[in-house]
Amino acid sequence: MESSMQPALEELDRAECLRLIAPGGVGRVAFDDGEGPAVVPVNYAVDGESVLFRTSVSGRLNRSLLTAVTGGQVRAAFEVDSIDTATRSGWSVLLRGGAHRLSDEERDKAVRVDPWPGGDRDAWFRLTASDVSGRRLSPP
Amino acid sequence: MESSMQPALEELDRAECLRLIAPGGVGRVAFDDGEGPAVVPVNYAVDGESVLFRTSVSGRLNRSLLTAVTGGQVRAAFEVDSIDTATRSGWSVLLRGGAHRLSDEERDKAVRVDPWPGGDRDAWFRLTASDVSGRRLSPP
Repeated sequence: MESSMQPALEELDRAECLRLIAPGGVGRVAFDDGEGPAVVPVNYAVDGESVLFRTSVSGRLNRSLLTAVTGGQVRAAFEVDSIDTATRSGWSVLLRGGAHRLSDEERDKAVRVDPWPGGDRDAWFRLTASDVSGRRLSPP
Repeated sequence: MESSMQPALEELDRAECLRLIAPGGVGRVAFDDGEGPAVVPVNYAVDGESVLFRTSVSGRLNRSLLTAVTGGQVRAAFEVDSIDTATRSGWSVLLRGGAHRLSDEERDKAVRVDPWPGGDRDAWFRLTASDVSGRRLSPP
């Protein structure tokens, strides 16, 4: 019976998803490091239908990502959401596709990503979305 | 040069990670649906060193999760974070392990999970953490 008073999830189209994530900020990259899925928050920027993010070359999970994509692409997902616990509402967007590490040349031409943490965050990645989906939950 | 003024990420121990996620709320489950990693926000509750979450049996990604775990476990990750864009700080916790769908009997004995969206959210899962890690970024 609880369901009848609660709002339903609304599917968002591709254009709306890209609009929602356009400002950049913090997203979460998911990849398989050989021991199953892992998820790490990163700062990101949007460039067309791809997202750019930077990470450290030293973190354990990051090393796995680096190893996975060296010399090629790895399947990855990128999730961005905005959730308001007070009104129990929000939206989430999921990009799925291939991630690759930028070469120095690609990096120099890329949109800037401003990472919050200090330390070297010298590994830049681009995830090109082959699939974009999203959902919105309106306040009750 | 930008790095010198920025704070470093601090690794959190297991006890601190479990303390941070204890209140429950919204987390993100990551799993491979056969087409690479996917990430979906869900409402969750903590039960010891495992997390319980509920989802709909009708969503596309959810169907993939259901298919993957039918009759067994699937490797999955569960991420919870709290991020303050104003101060550019926050924490994130990652649980990695096996997820399985609860039987009716397990469900009746389980900690309650209160999902925000309406509609049937009748598939309950438990992710038992074999690995718990987390990081905190303090304000600059």
